[in-house]
Amino acid sequence: MKKDGIKIVTIGGGSSYTPELVEGFIKRYNELPVRELWLVDVEAGKHKLEIVGELAKRMVEKAGVPMEIHLTLDRREALKDADFVTTQLRVGLLDARIKDERIPLSHGLIGQETNGAGGMFKALRTIPVILDIDKDMAELCPNAFLINFTNPAGMVTEALLRYGKNKRVIGLCNVPINMEKAAANMLGVDHSRIRMDFVGLNHMVYGKKIFLDGLDVTNQVVDAIADGKMGAIVKNIKDFEWDADFIKSLGMMPCPYHKYYYETQEMLESELKEFAKGETRAEVVKRLEDDLFKLYDDPNLDIKPPQLEKRGGALYSDAACRLINSIYNDKGDIQPVDCRNNGAIEGLDDDSAVEVSCVITKEGPRPLAMGKLPLQVTGLVQEIKNFEKLVIEAAVTGDYHTALMAMSMNPLVPSDKMAKILLDELLVAHKDYLPQFKDEIAKIESAK
Amino acid sequence: MKKDGIKIVTIGGGSSYTPELVEGFIKRYNELPVRELWLVDVEAGKHKLEIVGELAKRMVEKAGVPMEIHLTLDRREALKDADFVTTQLRVGLLDARIKDERIPLSHGLIGQETNGAGGMFKALRTIPVILDIDKDMAELCPNAFLINFTNPAGMVTEALLRYGKNKRVIGLCNVPINMEKAAANMLGVDHSRIRMDFVGLNHMVYGKKIFLDGLDVTNQVVDAIADGKMGAIVKNIKDFEWDADFIKSLGMMPCPYHKYYYETQEMLESELKEFAKGETRAEVVKRLEDDLFKLYDDPNLDIKPPQLEKRGGALYSDAACRLINSIYNDKGDIQPVDCRNNGAIEGLDDDSAVEVSCVITKEGPRPLAMGKLPLQVTGLVQEIKNFEKLVIEAAVTGDYHTALMAMSMNPLVPSDKMAKILLDELLVAHKDYLPQFKDEIAKIESAK
Amino acid sequence: MKKDGIKIVTIGGGSSYTPELVEGFIKRYNELPVRELWLVDVEAGKHKLEIVGELAKRMVEKAGVPMEIHLTLDRREALKDADFVTTQLRVGLLDARIKDERIPLSHGLIGQETNGAGGMFKALRTIPVILDIDKDMAELCPNAFLINFTNPAGMVTEALLRYGKNKRVIGLCNVPINMEKAAANMLGVDHSRIRMDFVGLNHMVYGKKIFLDGLDVTNQVVDAIADGKMGAIVKNIKDFEWDADFIKSLGMMPCPYHKYYYETQEMLESELKEFAKGETRAEVVKRLEDDLFKLYDDPNLDIKPPQLEKRGGALYSDAACRLINSIYNDKGDIQPVDCRNNGAIEGLDDDSAVEVSCVITKEGPRPLAMGKLPLQVTGLVQEIKNFEKLVIEAAVTGDYHTALMAMSMNPLVPSDKMAKILLDELLVAHKDYLPQFKDEIAKIESAK
Amino acid sequence: MKKDGIKIVTIGGGSSYTPELVEGFIKRYNELPVRELWLVDVEAGKHKLEIVGELAKRMVEKAGVPMEIHLTLDRREALKDADFVTTQLRVGLLDARIKDERIPLSHGLIGQETNGAGGMFKALRTIPVILDIDKDMAELCPNAFLINFTNPAGMVTEALLRYGKNKRVIGLCNVPINMEKAAANMLGVDHSRIRMDFVGLNHMVYGKKIFLDGLDVTNQVVDAIADGKMGAIVKNIKDFEWDADFIKSLGMMPCPYHKYYYETQEMLESELKEFAKGETRAEVVKRLEDDLFKLYDDPNLDIKPPQLEKRGGALYSDAACRLINSIYNDKGDIQPVDCRNNGAIEGLDDDSAVEVSCVITKEGPRPLAMGKLPLQVTGLVQEIKNFEKLVIEAAVTGDYHTALMAMSMNPLVPSDKMAKILLDELLVAHKDYLPQFKDEIAKIESAK
Repeated sequence: MKKDGIKIVTIGGGSSYTPELVEGFIKRYNELPVRELWLVDVEAGKHKLEIVGELAKRMVEKAGVPMEIHLTLDRREALKDADFVTTQLRVGLLDARIKDERIPLSHGLIGQETNGAGGMFKALRTIPVILDIDKDMAELCPNAFLINFTNPAGMVTEALLRYGKNKRVIGLCNVPINMEKAAANMLGVDHSRIRMDFVGLNHMVYGKKIFLDGLDVTNQVVDAIADGKMGAIVKNIKDFEWDADFIKSLGMMPCPYHKYYYETQEMLESELKEFAKGETRAEVVKRLEDDLFKLYDDPNLDIKPPQLEKRGGALYSDAACRLINSIYNDKGDIQPVDCRNNGAIEGLDDDSAVEVSCVITKEGPRPLAMGKLPLQVTGLVQEIKNFEKLVIEAAVTGDYHTALMAMSMNPLVPSDKMAKILLDELLVAHKDYLPQFKDEIAKIESAK
Repeated sequence: MKKDGIKIVTIGGGSSYTPELVEGFIKRYNELPVRELWLVDVEAGKHKLEIVGELAKRMVEKAGVPMEIHLTLDRREALKDADFVTTQLRVGLLDARIKDERIPLSHGLIGQETNGAGGMFKALRTIPVILDIDKDMAELCPNAFLINFTNPAGMVTEALLRYGKNKRVIGLCNVPINMEKAAANMLGVDHSRIRMDFVGLNHMVYGKKIFLDGLDVTNQVVDAIADGKMGAIVKNIKDFEWDADFIKSLGMMPCPYHKYYYETQEMLESELKEFAKGETRAEVVKRLEDDLFKLYDDPNLDIKPPQLEKRGGALYSDAACRLINSIYNDKGDIQPVDCRNNGAIEGLDDDSAVEVSCVITKEGPRPLAMGKLPLQVTGLVQEIKNFEKLVIEAAVTGDYHTALMAMSMNPLVPSDKMAKILLDELLVAHKDYLPQFKDEIAKIESAK
Repeated sequence: MKKDGIKIVTIGGGSSYTPELVEGFIKRYNELPVRELWLVDVEAGKHKLEIVGELAKRMVEKAGVPMEIHLTLDRREALKDADFVTTQLRVGLLDARIKDERIPLSHGLIGQETNGAGGMFKALRTIPVILDIDKDMAELCPNAFLINFTNPAGMVTEALLRYGKNKRVIGLCNVPINMEKAAANMLGVDHSRIRMDFVGLNHMVYGKKIFLDGLDVTNQVVDAIADGKMGAIVKNIKDFEWDADFIKSLGMMPCPYHKYYYETQEMLESELKEFAKGETRAEVVKRLEDDLFKLYDDPNLDIKPPQLEKRGGALYSDAACRLINSIYNDKGDIQPVDCRNNGAIEGLDDDSAVEVSCVITKEGPRPLAMGKLPLQVTGLVQEIKNFEKLVIEAAVTGDYHTALMAMSMNPLVPSDKMAKILLDELLVAHKDYLPQFKDEIAKIESAK
Repeated sequence: MKKDGIKIVTIGGGSSYTPELVEGFIKRYNELPVRELWLVDVEAGKHKLEIVGELAKRMVEKAGVPMEIHLTLDRREALKDADFVTTQLRVGLLDARIKDERIPLSHGLIGQETNGAGGMFKALRTIPVILDIDKDMAELCPNAFLINFTNPAGMVTEALLRYGKNKRVIGLCNVPINMEKAAANMLGVDHSRIRMDFVGLNHMVYGKKIFLDGLDVTNQVVDAIADGKMGAIVKNIKDFEWDADFIKSLGMMPCPYHKYYYETQEMLESELKEFAKGETRAEVVKRLEDDLFKLYDDPNLDIKPPQLEKRGGALYSDAACRLINSIYNDKGDIQPVDCRNNGAIEGLDDDSAVEVSCVITKEGPRPLAMGKLPLQVTGLVQEIKNFEKLVIEAAVTGDYHTALMAMSMNPLVPSDKMAKILLDELLVAHKDYLPQFKDEIAKIESAK
């Protein structure tokens, strides 16, 4: 990396999350001297990019740090000689996410934007775009790290690892850091005294062991969760309490997204109510974003507005900046990220992307050897991982039967016939963003 | 084995299936000279034992084979020096099965007497009894083969392999033999020209490859299933057709019980209708059995009555007799049975019971090496296998949280809270047959 | 296969072993009606082919079976529509084998024509030729089985499985069948009552368990070996007795070739003496062969002469004919062959060739699941298998460093520097048969 | 750990290495405040303990740090409430090591005090003693870390992990740290800029990848070794150069002890010369130690004397102190230690001790996931690991055949018969320290 400071490129720079990131870089400037931050977006996002970009400039100016903010629609110009590239793009914008959630709900099924039917389609839309970025990076900044925030982060990371040219690829999610914080809160101690062994997949991660000052306190945390002391971890997921005996049986800390699998019925009922009111999470987020951009557009605003926290990305900035910081400064601290398994979780392929505690150095993340998954979760994790693999394959090949197999095996899709209905309807709904399925979509449309 | 003929002991000899078995032995007498058949039952089954036993004697007499039929309630007397012991017992009789099916349905959930909540309770009731039989066998007939027909055959077999003394244990199911026959029918060829590679678990088995005269015809069979040509394989399971594209995506022949997992919604709707009418499978079977015993009681009947076929055990006799025959005569033919995995299916524990094609010799069954499971089914099979392991552990230890974890992870149980409700209600309903849970049941009852 | 009888092609038909094979087909004619036997050889072997071919014709005539014997140098003509192809070729003839053995011995090291330095060079010479045959077969007889007798049979089989087009490939060795017979002799029972579980690699195979009439008698056989009752199993290997305590520690039946690894010192001393006298095995065999061909050339000879037994291929014919017979007649008996592992031996790659007990049907051989190798042999078997993999890779790529790594890791080669000396000297000695190493050999020669 | 400073117990405190350790603690006192250092020894080592202990006191006094030095023969008194326990004991003292080396050499075989016949006997003598210490620790300081320097460190660590009560067990060797330093020297850079991925076993460890400032420079280091630039890494092992082509084929950095396996012949020749002159390494070390103790006994000496470096333990102090420091201060740096595999090296048991790069925190060491071993070393590593397992089992059970199997499978022992001779002779020679083999030794002696 350059002696005179770091160059960071953020693709999807017009995202409402950008002020989080800018705030994070400002706070850490002394340790992590970001010289240039390039915010890149596509034509359709130009207006948002300008609003966010101007706010970023005001934030930097107010903070008095010499960080240059560049706004551009020219991705290749931005990527030249970058040190870190972060991706937070959304192909099809929030309107596509609304379809991902509403179409399944219209059939009485959960959409789930990460590892359900909705997440499958987000992956199908996103993976080709990300693989294009990877190609540009291999040419323009071959030693840069690609840090992906775009959901479904697990599938996107594995797609890059399997089909990309650049192997310095890291997926990042704010769920694990929030789990650590929740555990610290339950124990009434500072977050820094807690260390959690994360094992699993993105949005399917477990806190297998929890240590306080080096000693195992997993059972204490499990008991606290059983006593209903946890509360909501992230804004995106409903806050049902876990059954006390179930959580003791599980013996680990689940992540909020596990409610989709262990409380399917309650989640579905809740989402169907939101669906009826036009208040699916996607729709709520869209309104939140509209409000945020109105705020961002205020020329007097020169800090990250507190309203951003409702958006659901709590600690995203912390997660992202501490990762970049640890790589840049060779810190060797332990952070949960999505990366190549390499045997860290026995029973999953070496080439799979997993979400696991890693030591972070200038070589990038290195997963800790976690041994076997506990018996009670092996099957579910394996099933979701294989679902992800088939989705990735379908995203790259455009093969209809691969996509159908993925949809059918998803635990939230309760029938082969329903899987086909969902698949066909979502393919048609997203046809503008699924060029790889062009012929298949034409067949479906002509058969109607 | 004795030079002067074979001694077979059938525990649960009063079962309505017994005439199937007797007919099978009669037909094969030349190759497989059964000298003594001991039908054993418990006090509560004495009346049925006598009815069936007398019919058996009439069948033998009519056939003119020198097979002695012994009826007894004294298991230990029967076991002495046996060559083969078959188990077809039903702890709690059909009334228990009715509860296994109706209690879950009363909460809007599938009961499933094999690897669902119902099957879990059948296992909890059965495993301690079977382990007792195993102990007697180790003492009284240590070289005998135990051939278990009692469902859930997979769990019972694994419990014996893990906790029993006798390692000559084989689980048997009539589903695979019926799948082979269905494939032969679809291809319009004789059953003997077909060979199928079975992989999976009991009631979760796939026909991975199908050979006709030594050549791979899997795709032809898959296409025939997609074209709706298969029809019902066993009487117990509804006959929905598979979605044509799904079956092509799967690329293998599923078993009928897979409908519980790939057509959950349709199965549930159908079972709820039966529930409302008092026509769950258990109730239907109970009536069928009552009718059968009336027939059996007719002193003029001296053959297996054709009505028995409706009972659902088609080819059971063939499956059982060809297995015993191949062991006795060291045939070396390939048959699907439940046995110790020993690496046959990669990714499952060596000590797990799996349902897999085996070569059958005088050493017993030896599974063929089948490699890895296809990606699309690994997770589901792993999940059910781990569910089974926890059920077995709970059956042996009586541990409440182990049982709850098993129930919660079952794919047919959609919520942790529902799992607890089901578990508690079923524990109480079956308390007479669950001595290992005595204290836990008392706690539940006192908490009400 | 044809209704009117089987077509068999034997490549290397001029081998001294051919009368064995012909005798085997004659004996089994009723079950296994070989209509045409094509003996194929290369120009350099034309004379021997004619001698052996004429003897074969006399044998057939004397036996009075309607088997046509064809002699040809045109491999492609012979392969057309074959049912079985057997390979018993020897690239470079016995003179090459003499170099394989004498060059290492000249440096005080064991040559070993199967999995030592000598065997490595036999593989480097043979694999390209066999892959050529495979290509012809894919075109001319795509459903034929290729049954390879050419040593090193394990490496040749794996090369075909990895790089060939035809997957119906089986390696065959007479060592296991002789081990079974030796066990039967020690127990004083007929061979047919014994069944042995074979696990390992070609010439590195263990009898893990031994059954007599279905019951485990492994310990009895081990004790008999410890008592020195075994005697020589094959003619090729010296007959030192095993140390009694060692064999009890091992707890299995080793194969004769294990003496190279467990009695390295004694084998080396013995071979050095033979080397000094010009009586290495290769030289002895060459003289035996010369004598045999003189016998074969006698127009009055019309049976397999008893002198052939000294050659070392005892029961080869039985092994080959019973394999072909079981495939043709779908026998389902259990035979040890070299085939794709597919998980049969845990810890070795699915794609590796292993020597293991298989059930033989019209689909070909299917290995039985054997679980993990015993702790005490895992490392050695793994090391030889990986040596084989590198040799195969070197045979196909001609890469010098791959070949050197293979040579260096061989347990019979005690130093990196010695490995290089051996490699270079053997490359130059065999240069006429190693076109893939042409450039490397030129470098070595110019550096001298 | 105590707020007021750390309590460290060194068992075998009378060792000549102790001044290294004391110097290390003095240098790091600010970060790592060792309040009490207890040097423990047995009656036979009392005199040395006093000499070393007095020197330690003078060193501490000269340095002006408030570290208390305690000398005792009462192990239990010392262990009470310890934070760290280090073990550097030598059962049977150097005289036993001399036998370990000379007896095999007297038969023309390498003794090798770590994973050869000699190391096997060091393990058989040491393991029961270490397991006794473990028992005391479980009672007297259950949260303390046990850091074992006693060779064979890999076997001792695995014995503790398998049979001990305390799971906070770490094996430590100075070989890896010296390999890193050698790589840094070859590249001409400071040690701190190098990070090496260590995989393997104690004294069988490879530098799989080497990074300079975060970028992979493995090939540069390999080329430098091939060019003969490495030099001797540790004093204990002869400094033959590696064959240049071999090292390029290997593609990794071997450790010095690999010369025993890849240059067996040269090592043997060299050791036989030393044997003839009475200059085996053990004998040389014994004289060095005598000289050292004369130096230590000088009341004017109050620093670690430079002559200690010849002893072969270069950087031992650094390795030990940086490990304790990183645990105490939760540093999170990456260090190679011997610990439970837990999947870090695929293909080895989870429960095996491996030598692998770990992140070191207050939880202790956590191995990084290293994936599979390279093909070319899998077999050798597996063989040595399994040898170690059998040695450990023999150390605990005293079973003769287990010990013989271990000896026979060791790659440095070239024959079953020789294995038995060595085993018997070494058992008798060490009988005072092998109570677990008492009966077996009596049998051997009476048979003579």
